[in-house]
Amino acid sequence: MADPRFFSSSGPQRLADIAAVAGAQFEGDGERRFTGVASLQSAGPDDVSFLDNRRYAPLLAETRAGAVVLAKAFAGQVPSGAVALVTAQPYLGFARVAALLHPPVQPRPGIHPSAVVAPDALVGEGTEIGPCVVIGAGARIGAGCILHPHVTVGPGVEIGEGCRLHANSSVSHAILGRGVVLHPGARIGQEGFGFAPTPDGRFETMPQLGRVLLGDFVEVGANSCVDRGSQGDTILGPGTRLDNLVQIGHNVQTGRGCVVVGQAGIAGSTTLGDYVTLAAQAGVAGHITLGTQVRVGAQAGVMHDVPPKLDVIGSPSMPVREFWRAMARWRKLGTERDG
Amino acid sequence: MADPRFFSSSGPQRLADIAAVAGAQFEGDGERRFTGVASLQSAGPDDVSFLDNRRYAPLLAETRAGAVVLAKAFAGQVPSGAVALVTAQPYLGFARVAALLHPPVQPRPGIHPSAVVAPDALVGEGTEIGPCVVIGAGARIGAGCILHPHVTVGPGVEIGEGCRLHANSSVSHAILGRGVVLHPGARIGQEGFGFAPTPDGRFETMPQLGRVLLGDFVEVGANSCVDRGSQGDTILGPGTRLDNLVQIGHNVQTGRGCVVVGQAGIAGSTTLGDYVTLAAQAGVAGHITLGTQVRVGAQAGVMHDVPPKLDVIGSPSMPVREFWRAMARWRKLGTERDG
Amino acid sequence: MADPRFFSSSGPQRLADIAAVAGAQFEGDGERRFTGVASLQSAGPDDVSFLDNRRYAPLLAETRAGAVVLAKAFAGQVPSGAVALVTAQPYLGFARVAALLHPPVQPRPGIHPSAVVAPDALVGEGTEIGPCVVIGAGARIGAGCILHPHVTVGPGVEIGEGCRLHANSSVSHAILGRGVVLHPGARIGQEGFGFAPTPDGRFETMPQLGRVLLGDFVEVGANSCVDRGSQGDTILGPGTRLDNLVQIGHNVQTGRGCVVVGQAGIAGSTTLGDYVTLAAQAGVAGHITLGTQVRVGAQAGVMHDVPPKLDVIGSPSMPVREFWRAMARWRKLGTERDG
Repeated sequence: MADPRFFSSSGPQRLADIAAVAGAQFEGDGERRFTGVASLQSAGPDDVSFLDNRRYAPLLAETRAGAVVLAKAFAGQVPSGAVALVTAQPYLGFARVAALLHPPVQPRPGIHPSAVVAPDALVGEGTEIGPCVVIGAGARIGAGCILHPHVTVGPGVEIGEGCRLHANSSVSHAILGRGVVLHPGARIGQEGFGFAPTPDGRFETMPQLGRVLLGDFVEVGANSCVDRGSQGDTILGPGTRLDNLVQIGHNVQTGRGCVVVGQAGIAGSTTLGDYVTLAAQAGVAGHITLGTQVRVGAQAGVMHDVPPKLDVIGSPSMPVREFWRAMARWRKLGTERDG
Repeated sequence: MADPRFFSSSGPQRLADIAAVAGAQFEGDGERRFTGVASLQSAGPDDVSFLDNRRYAPLLAETRAGAVVLAKAFAGQVPSGAVALVTAQPYLGFARVAALLHPPVQPRPGIHPSAVVAPDALVGEGTEIGPCVVIGAGARIGAGCILHPHVTVGPGVEIGEGCRLHANSSVSHAILGRGVVLHPGARIGQEGFGFAPTPDGRFETMPQLGRVLLGDFVEVGANSCVDRGSQGDTILGPGTRLDNLVQIGHNVQTGRGCVVVGQAGIAGSTTLGDYVTLAAQAGVAGHITLGTQVRVGAQAGVMHDVPPKLDVIGSPSMPVREFWRAMARWRKLGTERDG
Repeated sequence: MADPRFFSSSGPQRLADIAAVAGAQFEGDGERRFTGVASLQSAGPDDVSFLDNRRYAPLLAETRAGAVVLAKAFAGQVPSGAVALVTAQPYLGFARVAALLHPPVQPRPGIHPSAVVAPDALVGEGTEIGPCVVIGAGARIGAGCILHPHVTVGPGVEIGEGCRLHANSSVSHAILGRGVVLHPGARIGQEGFGFAPTPDGRFETMPQLGRVLLGDFVEVGANSCVDRGSQGDTILGPGTRLDNLVQIGHNVQTGRGCVVVGQAGIAGSTTLGDYVTLAAQAGVAGHITLGTQVRVGAQAGVMHDVPPKLDVIGSPSMPVREFWRAMARWRKLGTERDG
């Protein structure tokens, strides 16, 4: 059960409406009402639950959930009294049910008196500017946004409609599309890491004169960093999602729908095609290219270009199949006896 | 010597009192006074020092410290003129002496006029709310806390007695026990990394409807992140300590007294028993279980369940003994000549 | 072209002046004017570009740049109509041209009315204190600094002349030299990770009574962390640069001009000589010493002392040459057939 101190509820919803948002078929009384969502183990008769991973299928027999979103293959295992909500995409369907029953927070339009908004900044209609937010000269914030406390928006920044900038995040030298989400402490648009050594052993900063462009619906995780370009821009394609503590160097460019999991990093001037995924703590060197749908394993270190659709792992990385074969033999080195 | 600009002093303390807090035996004048603590190399006659690591034992002969907290085995090596403070736990004893001579900062009760506290939020007795702190609707802050500048506390959050929230940290969707410490920039309770792909190649966010529960005396390091649960809660057991830049995914649960060193990460829905330790930059995959007192080596990558009390290392991880044997043979590949 | 919303321009500059700051020789009309800088691919006739990496030399033939800073060896390949600006240090020369054409932001002296500055804090002449900055009791800020929004400066902190503290960064228990830069969200001076286990299974914090000393022109990247010393100080030598999300443990000391790339970490009490470089995601264990000019490869894990000028890589690390030989043989394990 979602804690009502933290999550609003839309009140009881009709099964027919729930099935509609889930894109699911069901048998039974469409007027039956449900109030919440929960896991198979903790759900009660007024909750909707889901099954997406076949390893959890054994939990179906004992669930007390009133309804379960799942694939057709498992529909027969739902206990009597529970409704099977059958769909080809149970995870997506359940996400939509959860959002129906617990709608996301909406902006409370207005600018908090403690916020510091430059006189020439533009704030769109219906946007909420929270306490202690600071917005620099000439910045433009779209309609329907929420800027949470202690957000810093630098001069000239443009933010599209419906964005969410969470507490203590900062953005400068950047243009954000629609529906962009910055989680708490995310850092967007700061100077990249570039400097020239001098003959007498000092470093001089290379001016970083580019920007960050975040496509529509990009999300940047808590305390993650996206540096602005040096010449030219750092670009995250539409729908790209970064988890927490991710590092994106200057002039990186990603395609559409890339996914970068926690603590992974991409060094400067590297290019990712569409739908590339980096697992946790992976690293990608600078000035290389990863093709469409490449998948990089956890803790991998990628030093060279990777062709489309290849899965790589290891540090330095290699194709997954070769890695596991080598690793199996390597493990033997640790268990077999000498000669 | 602790710099008086940054650390208060309780003034000279009697040797007898120092020995009492250290739980140590000594010979000599219990009225002798000491004013500070310092390392063996930098201590002077008015300072108390300590020896905990035998590799530093050779420094004893030349220390100018007035007293040294140490184990019985080394007491004979203390120079004449210095007092041996003998205890079975020298490191713990010294920690208590240091806290006696330089007491931790205490709250200066009150709410700074620049803070923004929701009218229905509750702030406990003796609590200090610093400049530019923002506290959301319905939040409850216990007695004797300090909230440093620019802390953001979201709506409905509960914080126990005696907590310390350091500068620029943020917490939402969370319940904190007593004595919890959030170091600067720590991020608690933000949305976990969960989304469902749609048939047309977009991602939809899975509503994250759980909370973060931090047990008594949990500490979270600077810029570390603890995501809230998706269904159900993310839970850190009492006394668990996270170093800086650590990532804790949604629905992780740890037991009592776990230790996670800098830049390590734990993926979603993984469970740790009591007193598990993760060394720096280690990573643990999601949906697995690490038993009580498991120790994970630096930079290790754990992909499967680990039984209690096993030490593992490597990426992917394996038992320590096997790892080092395999590594020794692997290194030979780098040094021996071909065939 | 630098976006004028984010970067100021000094207006057209004479070729003679550009060459002078670049330390470059040229042939042609010193009165010709240039307005911007850009990459070889995107530059136009009014832009200065550069060539530093021989792999990009083929781009010279087709560039539309009006002038190119480069080494003598490539001067002959500059298209007719473009000016070759010949220097032994093209990257450094170009950095200075870029700074001439797009001068860095200068402080707008004054204290924003929303800032909270302790009555006994000192703020130097010409320094800009931005919105919602908080400065603690007894702190001293040098002349010509910029403190961006939501910066927290703790009590007693000293900051030298010409420093830049970017948005949402925090500093306590620290003394900063001249020209220090803290990027957004950097955390300086918080408690290190030290505690003593008690016999009954709790942890007690070891008071962290040291400071952080940042030498002149040190830079700390976005969301990076530098913990203060426990006894004694954590010290970063002059000119040392940390990239984003870097972790520096208590009592680490670095020499002059060290470079630590993104997501790398150094555990407590380790010492680095001058000009040591750590590549991305590398880790260095505590209580060890890395000699002058040591270079640590990406994702390496250094567990033992490294003598000066040695390059190491791997986890655990070994000399580079040995690593690659072993790795080549290891890869064979993944590709060759059994028996």
